[in-house]
Amino acid sequence: MKESVAPDGSRHAIPTHGEALAQFEELRWRAPAFPKTVVVQGLGFVGAAVAAVIAGARDAAGRPLYFVIGTDLATPGSYWKVAKINAGEAPIGSPDAELGALIEDGTRATGNLRATTCEEAYGLADVIVVDLPLDVTGWDGGTGIEIGLATFEAALGAIGRHIRPDTLVVIETTVPPGACEKIAAPILERERRARGIAKPLLLAHAYERVMPGPRYVDSIRRFWRSYSGADARSAAAAGEFLQSFIDTGSFPLWELPNTASSEMAKLMENSYRAVNIAWVHEWTLLAERLGVNLFEVVESVRVRKGTHDNMRYPGFGVGGYCLTKDSLLAQWSAGAMFGADVTLGITLEALRINRRMPLHTFDLALELAGGSLAGKRVLVAGVSYLAEVADTRSSPTEILVDELARAGAEAVVHDPHVRCWPERPGVEMVESLQQGLEAADGLVLAVPHRAYQRIEFTGERLKFVVDAQNVLDDDRAQWLHERGMRVAGVGKGHWRKSGY
Amino acid sequence: MKESVAPDGSRHAIPTHGEALAQFEELRWRAPAFPKTVVVQGLGFVGAAVAAVIAGARDAAGRPLYFVIGTDLATPGSYWKVAKINAGEAPIGSPDAELGALIEDGTRATGNLRATTCEEAYGLADVIVVDLPLDVTGWDGGTGIEIGLATFEAALGAIGRHIRPDTLVVIETTVPPGACEKIAAPILERERRARGIAKPLLLAHAYERVMPGPRYVDSIRRFWRSYSGADARSAAAAGEFLQSFIDTGSFPLWELPNTASSEMAKLMENSYRAVNIAWVHEWTLLAERLGVNLFEVVESVRVRKGTHDNMRYPGFGVGGYCLTKDSLLAQWSAGAMFGADVTLGITLEALRINRRMPLHTFDLALELAGGSLAGKRVLVAGVSYLAEVADTRSSPTEILVDELARAGAEAVVHDPHVRCWPERPGVEMVESLQQGLEAADGLVLAVPHRAYQRIEFTGERLKFVVDAQNVLDDDRAQWLHERGMRVAGVGKGHWRKSGY
Repeated sequence: MKESVAPDGSRHAIPTHGEALAQFEELRWRAPAFPKTVVVQGLGFVGAAVAAVIAGARDAAGRPLYFVIGTDLATPGSYWKVAKINAGEAPIGSPDAELGALIEDGTRATGNLRATTCEEAYGLADVIVVDLPLDVTGWDGGTGIEIGLATFEAALGAIGRHIRPDTLVVIETTVPPGACEKIAAPILERERRARGIAKPLLLAHAYERVMPGPRYVDSIRRFWRSYSGADARSAAAAGEFLQSFIDTGSFPLWELPNTASSEMAKLMENSYRAVNIAWVHEWTLLAERLGVNLFEVVESVRVRKGTHDNMRYPGFGVGGYCLTKDSLLAQWSAGAMFGADVTLGITLEALRINRRMPLHTFDLALELAGGSLAGKRVLVAGVSYLAEVADTRSSPTEILVDELARAGAEAVVHDPHVRCWPERPGVEMVESLQQGLEAADGLVLAVPHRAYQRIEFTGERLKFVVDAQNVLDDDRAQWLHERGMRVAGVGKGHWRKSGY
Repeated sequence: MKESVAPDGSRHAIPTHGEALAQFEELRWRAPAFPKTVVVQGLGFVGAAVAAVIAGARDAAGRPLYFVIGTDLATPGSYWKVAKINAGEAPIGSPDAELGALIEDGTRATGNLRATTCEEAYGLADVIVVDLPLDVTGWDGGTGIEIGLATFEAALGAIGRHIRPDTLVVIETTVPPGACEKIAAPILERERRARGIAKPLLLAHAYERVMPGPRYVDSIRRFWRSYSGADARSAAAAGEFLQSFIDTGSFPLWELPNTASSEMAKLMENSYRAVNIAWVHEWTLLAERLGVNLFEVVESVRVRKGTHDNMRYPGFGVGGYCLTKDSLLAQWSAGAMFGADVTLGITLEALRINRRMPLHTFDLALELAGGSLAGKRVLVAGVSYLAEVADTRSSPTEILVDELARAGAEAVVHDPHVRCWPERPGVEMVESLQQGLEAADGLVLAVPHRAYQRIEFTGERLKFVVDAQNVLDDDRAQWLHERGMRVAGVGKGHWRKSGY
């Protein structure tokens, strides 16, 4: 019997298809007790939260609007999410307690939330919400980009094989512009035609803006949402569905005229952030040479509300599932889908800079260590890609730790929110920051978790500290310097000028 | 006798040095009637307005705080500014009536505003405000940059030859980071030492954020201001001076710790805008290929206040004195002053894209004209670099008109705010948009002046219209299309898709 192991270490036996189908029978008789059925395809960081929020939707009388079925694959890498939800637990650790409460409420009290591996679920759906991942599988640093379309295409095929004539398919996945029209619609149409369905397909794109963190649920329910339909009927149906679980009183829906527009909007949002981060990194390198504290400079410029108040601060790097790759989908689309000779030059340069960014922190550590890190034990504080979250996807700490290993250093990591690091299972993790510190030659502050603001520099071994996230103030840097430690900070040109 | 001709065509005899000195005597006896004397060096778009605002500063009892002397050169290119101010007129045309009122009031009613070409004026000053231009004189498109330092250095030398021991020098000019410390201070110190002045120099950097347009005066008096001093005494003196004419109740001053920080802040502000414009241009080219109306997409994304609400719209190009060159000062500084191997890659790429940007509008015109513009008469509507202003410095229309000429087209231009175009005196200007339109084969809407929103497409000759600034809505584009004209718009992929 195959098992699926969750990030928290829990183990879940993967059912055979027969077993899954037997369990699925419960869903078949349970669904009609609710006005409509929604299937959420893909139970990752987005899908699990979306399923929970939709299960929490109520009519004016407080009755659940939907029976919600989450689907994911019967594979070791995915099945645990199905098992967790059916056990009434959030598959994702989150500082937002509401997420867990919604899932518990849906699976137990209300009984309108279930998960399954059976694609037969799509046959029950009035609405299917697609929250699959769509990965960039290769990038040569320029316009040579490969996309992992096969999973996406297979999943849409499964929908098409079961979908009812009137089912609305809402794609939330971040896709290359043109994908709804040129990839999703043809697959769904082909499968529907094969089953004799002639009615026009209802297909919409409504990208999510889910933010892991303390406002996880609100980032779905109480935030702006744009959407578009493949045609007017689809758009109308999607608008009606979205307003049933989004607070559109405070955040009115924004309808865009076609799916390419909303597909593009999503990519531009994330490219914009990625570019602004990369741009600051260029000036960070300059500030360090000029003896300038770039944090102060950026702070002073941000008073210009509406034009400059989103200028980013210097930092360690860019991680997460979106900013590190989304723009590449647009560049891929230009060539592969539209045959357009358009190069998103700044956009691509920004991703290149952001991928190299953690190496600047490495360079600072190397300099403080006197030019060699061989044999040095370096504690990297922070593994997640964002303060106070547990998400380690594409964390920039990966890049630093790999480079430390190449340089012959012994990298150990700490993170108050991360117990195991699936992307780098071989790297030593310490549970106690203090003990880790006492056994290290160097410290890199890579994530500005609140816990790190109270670090006590005890022990005798520590020789250098690199602050990549403005965790230490000038007084603490001075204090370390006076005790014989070498100190450097990303964007802290004034420390360098002071000879720390 | 040499003359200086103003942009409005008025002619002014340039006085000899003897004549100027004789006129200067009036300033020498007039100054002591006021508590302090301020000299503003350089009477261009910034200096003239700054002088006017400082002359308008009053104490609690409503009495003028300063006698203000503006200085500029006794050259054909500059003297007219001196003459204009002494005649009580604003040297710059501006939609902000307050500018003219301040200058008239200062020169006539209060008598505390004068201009001169005599460097002896610096000897009267308690405060000298430096508003010189500092130009990029050469750029190879990469890190090869030349700066016209000679004028700047000569002007500072003139200050140093006359300055009193306690005079505060406030540099407002946008300079390469490090310039105050490594260029300005050494020149001033050298001249002061030669005159036996041992007292420490008072030197500050307080960059301006002047915006030509209807809020010209407010962009000095009622807006954020950052500053820094070469030392603590300089910073304190600069802060006291700035608060005497800036509304610091609403816009508290921001002191930065050293001059390199504020020099850098200014460059970053303008680089940030330039990069955000260039980035949108990349996506504009993509949107046009994908059939997407990028204006709608950007509009939808800008609901995200604080992170995305300053995303820029597609457009024609970037002009003006600042955004087109400021970032280059930083790149120059990195190499020439700090020997730093830092390349501001995104920053430079943005300037390259922005310089090419008007050529995209040219390409659209070429396409609509069927591949050749030879012999075609093309009316370009808009010469200034910004809507509703008269400023033509580095206008992107220059680039378009040059390219039209290269393609054998006959370019004529129109602008409701510009009577003569000093940068392209040979290009035909039409006063009547309507008459220009009736005699043209094609129209390019290059600047979104309000007047262009009411264009009537009369006459028979016009065959194509390129809207580079979202001036036409979809209905008007459709109307033109139905009358047999070809229509294209920057960022209007949906028009292309509709076969306009």
